[in-house]
Amino acid sequence: MTELGVVYRNIERADRAAADALAAFGSATVHEAMGRVGLMKPYMRPIYAGAQVSGTAVTVLMHPGDNWMLHVVAEQIRPGDIVVAAITAECSDGYFGDLLATSFKARGGRALVIDAGVRDVRTLTEMGFPVWSKFISAKGTIKATPGSVNIAVVCAGALVTPGDVVVADDDGVAVVPRARANETLAAARAREASEGDKREKLASGALGLDLYKMREPLAKAGLRYID
Amino acid sequence: MTELGVVYRNIERADRAAADALAAFGSATVHEAMGRVGLMKPYMRPIYAGAQVSGTAVTVLMHPGDNWMLHVVAEQIRPGDIVVAAITAECSDGYFGDLLATSFKARGGRALVIDAGVRDVRTLTEMGFPVWSKFISAKGTIKATPGSVNIAVVCAGALVTPGDVVVADDDGVAVVPRARANETLAAARAREASEGDKREKLASGALGLDLYKMREPLAKAGLRYID
Amino acid sequence: MTELGVVYRNIERADRAAADALAAFGSATVHEAMGRVGLMKPYMRPIYAGAQVSGTAVTVLMHPGDNWMLHVVAEQIRPGDIVVAAITAECSDGYFGDLLATSFKARGGRALVIDAGVRDVRTLTEMGFPVWSKFISAKGTIKATPGSVNIAVVCAGALVTPGDVVVADDDGVAVVPRARANETLAAARAREASEGDKREKLASGALGLDLYKMREPLAKAGLRYID
Amino acid sequence: MTELGVVYRNIERADRAAADALAAFGSATVHEAMGRVGLMKPYMRPIYAGAQVSGTAVTVLMHPGDNWMLHVVAEQIRPGDIVVAAITAECSDGYFGDLLATSFKARGGRALVIDAGVRDVRTLTEMGFPVWSKFISAKGTIKATPGSVNIAVVCAGALVTPGDVVVADDDGVAVVPRARANETLAAARAREASEGDKREKLASGALGLDLYKMREPLAKAGLRYID
Amino acid sequence: MTELGVVYRNIERADRAAADALAAFGSATVHEAMGRVGLMKPYMRPIYAGAQVSGTAVTVLMHPGDNWMLHVVAEQIRPGDIVVAAITAECSDGYFGDLLATSFKARGGRALVIDAGVRDVRTLTEMGFPVWSKFISAKGTIKATPGSVNIAVVCAGALVTPGDVVVADDDGVAVVPRARANETLAAARAREASEGDKREKLASGALGLDLYKMREPLAKAGLRYID
Amino acid sequence: MTELGVVYRNIERADRAAADALAAFGSATVHEAMGRVGLMKPYMRPIYAGAQVSGTAVTVLMHPGDNWMLHVVAEQIRPGDIVVAAITAECSDGYFGDLLATSFKARGGRALVIDAGVRDVRTLTEMGFPVWSKFISAKGTIKATPGSVNIAVVCAGALVTPGDVVVADDDGVAVVPRARANETLAAARAREASEGDKREKLASGALGLDLYKMREPLAKAGLRYID
Repeated sequence: MTELGVVYRNIERADRAAADALAAFGSATVHEAMGRVGLMKPYMRPIYAGAQVSGTAVTVLMHPGDNWMLHVVAEQIRPGDIVVAAITAECSDGYFGDLLATSFKARGGRALVIDAGVRDVRTLTEMGFPVWSKFISAKGTIKATPGSVNIAVVCAGALVTPGDVVVADDDGVAVVPRARANETLAAARAREASEGDKREKLASGALGLDLYKMREPLAKAGLRYID
Repeated sequence: MTELGVVYRNIERADRAAADALAAFGSATVHEAMGRVGLMKPYMRPIYAGAQVSGTAVTVLMHPGDNWMLHVVAEQIRPGDIVVAAITAECSDGYFGDLLATSFKARGGRALVIDAGVRDVRTLTEMGFPVWSKFISAKGTIKATPGSVNIAVVCAGALVTPGDVVVADDDGVAVVPRARANETLAAARAREASEGDKREKLASGALGLDLYKMREPLAKAGLRYID
Repeated sequence: MTELGVVYRNIERADRAAADALAAFGSATVHEAMGRVGLMKPYMRPIYAGAQVSGTAVTVLMHPGDNWMLHVVAEQIRPGDIVVAAITAECSDGYFGDLLATSFKARGGRALVIDAGVRDVRTLTEMGFPVWSKFISAKGTIKATPGSVNIAVVCAGALVTPGDVVVADDDGVAVVPRARANETLAAARAREASEGDKREKLASGALGLDLYKMREPLAKAGLRYID
Repeated sequence: MTELGVVYRNIERADRAAADALAAFGSATVHEAMGRVGLMKPYMRPIYAGAQVSGTAVTVLMHPGDNWMLHVVAEQIRPGDIVVAAITAECSDGYFGDLLATSFKARGGRALVIDAGVRDVRTLTEMGFPVWSKFISAKGTIKATPGSVNIAVVCAGALVTPGDVVVADDDGVAVVPRARANETLAAARAREASEGDKREKLASGALGLDLYKMREPLAKAGLRYID
Repeated sequence: MTELGVVYRNIERADRAAADALAAFGSATVHEAMGRVGLMKPYMRPIYAGAQVSGTAVTVLMHPGDNWMLHVVAEQIRPGDIVVAAITAECSDGYFGDLLATSFKARGGRALVIDAGVRDVRTLTEMGFPVWSKFISAKGTIKATPGSVNIAVVCAGALVTPGDVVVADDDGVAVVPRARANETLAAARAREASEGDKREKLASGALGLDLYKMREPLAKAGLRYID
Repeated sequence: MTELGVVYRNIERADRAAADALAAFGSATVHEAMGRVGLMKPYMRPIYAGAQVSGTAVTVLMHPGDNWMLHVVAEQIRPGDIVVAAITAECSDGYFGDLLATSFKARGGRALVIDAGVRDVRTLTEMGFPVWSKFISAKGTIKATPGSVNIAVVCAGALVTPGDVVVADDDGVAVVPRARANETLAAARAREASEGDKREKLASGALGLDLYKMREPLAKAGLRYID
């Protein structure tokens, strides 16, 4: 059961090297390497194009219109962390702005992933502090009710356990369970290695139909060509 | 009762200096300075990133699919105005494009805020004429039914009275009632002054928990830490 | 009746010169030149700003979560084509990424228009391969069920027949029936010619009210001015 | 400027007889009688079919996730009132349930119109207490921050001033400014009187084309018939 | 190219007996009988539960906020027809109410399918005149611009050619091309015949896994059971 | 990490008596009894009004457009279970109809909760088999790719572990972790006991302001009354 009003200070984080290395592969390759699972909903969008990061999750659960816990979670950030924020109900308010970003960055935080709104996006862009959010909104919040830090949360349809690896880029946000960071990294590397060769062949005009030997299975599945 | 078919030529505009000065604070600070009210819905998005403007509102109410009144409102624009356009029902059509923008700009208009669609966004971006809208759509409109100019309108959930100050940036659109432009400006200045100091402290690693003395109220509200 | 499991290899494409020339006018002017019809829904957005293309449509119909037919359609692309992809039901998955884009580009494809999701958008942007889509999503697809290539499809609310001209830019996507490419081009030229003069007059402060002689019809329609 | 933290106890209500009589005409006829204005957005839906009411508005403005002010507004209800609730930002929470409905009903309240969520809809249906809302949600709210009662609010896109007449049925919710309740009633009666005769003629097979003499204007507008 | 301003008076309708017989099978079975195609988007909902109809399509294309053509199409209705209404752009207005329903019914029309809004739903329910629509809205429309009657239209994502069979029920709306009404009816009958026997077996506790012999293909596809 | 292609046959179910008794309290009271957590998103709606059930969750994860696993999960249903179905990406297809409902019912299943579409809703209503879903859609699915049964899933924003208690009614769907079914039941009983007395007082005209002693805290929070 989701606990409210509690902060877990000691969480086990995924292997640092794996958590850092996953950024280079991007959310699409990483989720494929896990077997096509682990993605947040596609409504999560970056506030500026081109950011590509990975890091270990510290999580926070908040109530609609109340961002008090973002100050609480700041203290729990360690270098290499990404804050993942969930809300107990749909809310578009701007929970996070440039002051909190300054604080998160000073603590070593790499990004925020929030299933609600963010503001000061122009300043955040200038600061180079990336945020993936559902909304952009100037609407401020109050500080009235405690939520929780570092409990398992559902953010944008994905289960995030503290210490999991978060990989985010222009395509979206993937979540890799802590215990499987290394095997996912290996699978991502294998996948990418096989793609380089294919890219070259496709660029020179070869067809995926031949490269992936699809003509026979397509015919078996009943595909007909008509001239 | 909303009047249709009428153009008010003489409106009282907010204090010019205050209307101009509010741009620098942005929509988030301005709506906080008013007590966390006065924002349009977050679906209102700028057609390009980085624009930040304020000005006095001239308003226009139109029917779905009919942009006739945008030509009528053009004549009522004075330098420093921002046109705020509401529609009597949901409509995604592209009411406004580069020709109207050329006209608005020539009359001294600074921006358009429209609860519908806009088109020619590439040209508008090149012209540097900012628009905040609900939709981008190539769909054209007709000119068949009169609406009204300079009546009070509800635009994207906010009440806008002619002469009010509109403040728009990447975070959204705030509306400041004409009579309170000066006091809102003063409150925004006070708010920003207090933030500069905090930003510096947060940047050097201080925590909001300490800066804002939140530890005690959080404990009172029942927050527990678990190691 | 929509046929599944069939690939039409020989389609009649619109006149090449007209198909190529329409890009310069953009989706808004082209749909006006056709009488304000032929647009896809405004939820279709480009993955990066500033792309403006036209080309001849090759079409593909796929099932939710299954992108097998994108490999099939690749073989049918000829230089100057734009692939138009429809799905039999709503789906946000990322059907298309940089490998397929490499293949489409190598075959002479100019763009993809897809009523679903796309991924690898950062790489696609670097490659300069434009895509108009409903979603951006890292979610991968399977290859299990044949759809069809080069049948008439409904994509984002617009009927697209193979060989039609597709015109896409920041404002959206317009579809010109193959047989009317030339007359639409002529109408677009006429429309644009008349606009140049107006733009200049509006820039110097003239009003649309006078330029388009709207004052009398507005008065007839009952518009009243109040001082 | 929207005031927060204030309760206006004395409001002027629309003429009681007119406020009561408007229910019979329904929201569609009433908004037509006002000149096709005054409607809330169509996302406002009744929790059960068949309710048709009118009454005088008492208004309440609340924060996301906080329903404290519904207890405050209860005290301000007089027999024949309808409570109109607006939220300062989008929120789907269930602000209102059967206990509050019991209280509202005991005070003479006729209905609730709320731009957020409602719960206990099965019990509300059994009680015959109608609610028009944007959401149905079991999610509870807190009681932490004061809003306001009986200030002008924007609810679902419509401006509502305390004392206005609200007319709600299966088609939606219309708002009649207090000062124009009587003239709107007269216009609604005139409109309905003219419809009875038409209904009969149409039922016997007559065409609107002839009844409304549309054939000539349609021909003038360019409509062509092809056999 | 979509033609505006034209009414086709003579259309070829699907075989009457087949058009009438398809109602009994419902939209789900009919679209399966066509090979899982031909459905409108699921946002099309009936105004009341339980209606199940089929009929031959007469089509109408209208502009946003303008219902003039519904009077034009009324004259083209013959007994057994269903009117299918498309709009050139998204619009939530209430295009249709009880007067038009009276007229449509008097001409032998069985239902309306409209990719926009409808009103007077309480009266329509009492009349037993079913409507499938995207919105319910009290908002009225104007009569200013001609559209077209009996041209091919895209309604809620489905291509509808005049004379096609429309099958609508609580699950949605299916469209059967005129020329294939009879073969679709035969396929629907075959499908339903095979289901009766299965229903009985499933009701007595048999599993689809055995009935459809799925255990082996599931194992082949890699499904593992863990105790 | 979410496992695909696996069926867990032996799950521990919540205490049967508690699982059965929770239905009577409804989703709103149950989620309050857990501390205002545990709800699915409010887009989950029942296919007919008035159903109110609780039961133990058996879970299933499927791919977009593929319902194969619903046949697999049927075998795992025991009397008193509710099937909770999640999809790896957004999908509106109709995964479930009357044949599967017949099978589920025969196995003792009480309801289906599915974050996708359902069809045959008229027959399901007649059968009295309740479904809570995101969509109603006639669109059929294929049987091509295995998913999983009885793994932890995220359904409509809520984490559901096999054996948890699901409580669903007209207000939405609540999920009670297996280990806390008994304590939640006790808390729900306590909550309801305290409400009966209040309902009576409110019905006789008492105000929540007095009943809950809110006048003082409201005044402290700054609420002002103006006559």
